[in-house]
Amino acid sequence: MKIPVVTEILNANAVVAEKNRTTFIEHALLTLNLMASPGAGKTSFILATVKGLPKTVRPGVIEGDIASSIDADLIAAKGIPVVQINTGGNCHLDAPMIKTALPHLPLAELDLLFIENVGNLVCPAAFDLGAKIAVVIASVPEGHDKPYKYPGIFACADVVILNKADMIKPFAFDVDYFLRGLEMVNPNVPFFVVSSCTGSNIEAWVAWLLEAQQNFVRE
Amino acid sequence: MKIPVVTEILNANAVVAEKNRTTFIEHALLTLNLMASPGAGKTSFILATVKGLPKTVRPGVIEGDIASSIDADLIAAKGIPVVQINTGGNCHLDAPMIKTALPHLPLAELDLLFIENVGNLVCPAAFDLGAKIAVVIASVPEGHDKPYKYPGIFACADVVILNKADMIKPFAFDVDYFLRGLEMVNPNVPFFVVSSCTGSNIEAWVAWLLEAQQNFVRE
Repeated sequence: MKIPVVTEILNANAVVAEKNRTTFIEHALLTLNLMASPGAGKTSFILATVKGLPKTVRPGVIEGDIASSIDADLIAAKGIPVVQINTGGNCHLDAPMIKTALPHLPLAELDLLFIENVGNLVCPAAFDLGAKIAVVIASVPEGHDKPYKYPGIFACADVVILNKADMIKPFAFDVDYFLRGLEMVNPNVPFFVVSSCTGSNIEAWVAWLLEAQQNFVRE
Repeated sequence: MKIPVVTEILNANAVVAEKNRTTFIEHALLTLNLMASPGAGKTSFILATVKGLPKTVRPGVIEGDIASSIDADLIAAKGIPVVQINTGGNCHLDAPMIKTALPHLPLAELDLLFIENVGNLVCPAAFDLGAKIAVVIASVPEGHDKPYKYPGIFACADVVILNKADMIKPFAFDVDYFLRGLEMVNPNVPFFVVSSCTGSNIEAWVAWLLEAQQNFVRE
């Protein structure tokens, strides 16, 4: 087993990620890389977030999926600029895929770019896309042990969302146990318990996001 | 980007998978590779299945996780022979990991071996472990679009389980839509809608499994 080739691929990715980062800075475009298990509610979370944004903050979306345009169709139906990337089997997005998608978005007219990664709690963590903020979304039905079992992705998060909060009781979800696991791998990471479905606590997350966006523009 | 190295790794895996397969045949041990998203309920499904088995059918378990022994502890608490594999970051189990785990199990005393893969709807599909039956478990809270978005893993399944059936109503899960997607990638694959939590329909799945085990022993 030769490791060098893997290193080469990761290096090539890092070079393109750096180019993407420069593009985002040039356009004062705060970019989020949303990572989660399949079915954690990434698309619903994007839609709930956009609903909570002031009209002056203009969002765009890149949808990453192995196949289908189900999520991009949902986003487009709300009139949000969106590009679908089909990885055709690849378990994560990488920086070159994002670079290819960018010309299809009106970057100069956007303030926030949401990149929805392929549903996967492992591989996306290893690929820098050039995004400013790594958002890891866990969902209640997955169980409260996820930070213990998938420490790598939680460790790389700039902010952690616990989604489907309306299901905490039916699933006997122990938020304290989840948080203790999260603190072990990523102490003091910003953390929001929300329901994209009911909208509960989305406003706290949106306030945090708007402050991050203001700070990014000032930089 | 050079592909040959990846091919080499997969070939090496196939060689060891073949050795594992021979070991399983020698011990008349029917082996299942359980693949699912994080939190789909793989461990609960194994426990519910074991509870439904006749006493004469002796199970063993290999638990695959990136980190922790949470699942193996649950299995061991029921007195079931179990080995934990921590992949230390790897997003899937591979055949050499299984080969390393086997000497720690009393193979001659087992009739069924459940291998719980790392929670991931993509990568495990590419790695043959030597198991006879590929079981893909979807769970209701993940949403009914999974076969459309992750066709590769559903295509490789010998049997598909839809778990957490007690949550079909709260999540407005459309079983027909799920099944139409499944039929597109894997027509006529055996399919069971169960709840590991309430035990509903586990007996139908166990009946199927026992027949598969009988057929395997006869071969």
